[in-house]
Amino acid sequence: KHYIICGYGRVGRQVVEGLRANRFSVVVIDADPDVAAELDEKDIPHIIGDAADEEVLIQAGIDRASGLCTCLPSDATNVFTILSARTLNPDVYIVSRSNFYESEKKLRMAGADHVINPYWITGHRMAAQLLHPGVVEFLDVIMRQGELELRIEEIRISQDSPLAGKTLGQCQVRTETGVNVLAIRCHDGQIVTSPGPEYPLQVGDALIGLGTVAQLTKLARLAGDNRPWLHMADAH
Amino acid sequence: KHYIICGYGRVGRQVVEGLRANRFSVVVIDADPDVAAELDEKDIPHIIGDAADEEVLIQAGIDRASGLCTCLPSDATNVFTILSARTLNPDVYIVSRSNFYESEKKLRMAGADHVINPYWITGHRMAAQLLHPGVVEFLDVIMRQGELELRIEEIRISQDSPLAGKTLGQCQVRTETGVNVLAIRCHDGQIVTSPGPEYPLQVGDALIGLGTVAQLTKLARLAGDNRPWLHMADAH
Ligand SMILES: [Ca+2]
Ligand SMILES: [Ca+2]
Repeated sequence: KHYIICGYGRVGRQVVEGLRANRFSVVVIDADPDVAAELDEKDIPHIIGDAADEEVLIQAGIDRASGLCTCLPSDATNVFTILSARTLNPDVYIVSRSNFYESEKKLRMAGADHVINPYWITGHRMAAQLLHPGVVEFLDVIMRQGELELRIEEIRISQDSPLAGKTLGQCQVRTETGVNVLAIRCHDGQIVTSPGPEYPLQVGDALIGLGTVAQLTKLARLAGDNRPWLHMADAH
Repeated sequence: KHYIICGYGRVGRQVVEGLRANRFSVVVIDADPDVAAELDEKDIPHIIGDAADEEVLIQAGIDRASGLCTCLPSDATNVFTILSARTLNPDVYIVSRSNFYESEKKLRMAGADHVINPYWITGHRMAAQLLHPGVVEFLDVIMRQGELELRIEEIRISQDSPLAGKTLGQCQVRTETGVNVLAIRCHDGQIVTSPGPEYPLQVGDALIGLGTVAQLTKLARLAGDNRPWLHMADAH
């Protein structure tokens, strides 16, 4: 499983770094032949070409990619790339940069699952930093997956899990695993922030849990979520 | 208490929006006379001038400001502004945008307490979104302070609090208030992510707690933290 990153500019470089730090494979597409040397040197698979070109996307393995991220400097090019990617793979998860607010709707209509505006993110982060320095630092620590004791993971309940069909209270997640359930992402995509003990867990619901790697691995086992990065504690 | 925002561009606008959504006062400084009409219309106090000019900062009330945010498009101008602000107020909390990595060190040397690079933030957020869509959405919900049931607050322990001098276990914060203590920001600034029950709480330590407004208000009362936004539940 791999991720396709379209655009290796200042934002794209950070996306690649973030994915590789978590040991995920990437393929970079960029139109600028000058970046090839840097990508070669870092051993990052890449294609020099137009990301909106369907042949280029096919070459990058769009049919079997887990996700695609477009962070090109023009929103028109981002839209065009998303349309090509969506045509070739209706299921791939697509995250797009938007450079102007007005573009967000168009990017979503083209098929983006999630749109991120760098100015919005930066501005709100700066405001949060002014108002709550400790909270932001804590969330940053949590976001910097992999380097920390405590992390947040999203753990899905599978068909064979003993948790499916029980209420949250019956599952005793905290007592059994030590994981703190912060929220639930329902199978329909909605986020429930303070789930009560009477909340009925269904197959496909995901528990958003805070805990150590060992605790989260225990919960992943219980939930029947076999995605490999959730079982890192088993590797020891 | 008010915040000074230097630069009303795409990032600065979002900082102002974030602060005003939380009902904090701001003063904007921007060199461009064209933004005055927009700021007038939105009833946002502002000064048209150079933020690095000490007289302009004095006019903006730098001596009594809680924080200053510089988000100018040139890092040289950000450095210059920070130097002026730091000269006039050694205690003001300063958050700066950096446009290039190489600038981060200079911005800190000039006196910035925290530096934010928009490309880093955006890229890592996109990577996190690809890998953990639910977790990122949950953290976004938490960051969007004010509109949600569940929020994270940093609550400081004051001299008169019964919590000061006790261990975390003795305080029984969860049982007494319902707040989930996620981390502690020590009086020396360090973040302790999984504090055990034997952790000794001191005056000046801050509990980073997750809970409803009512629960957090209860904890703020117990901790003797009188900052007004922590007591919103009392207003009802
Ligand atoms: Ca880029
Ligand atoms: Ca700006």
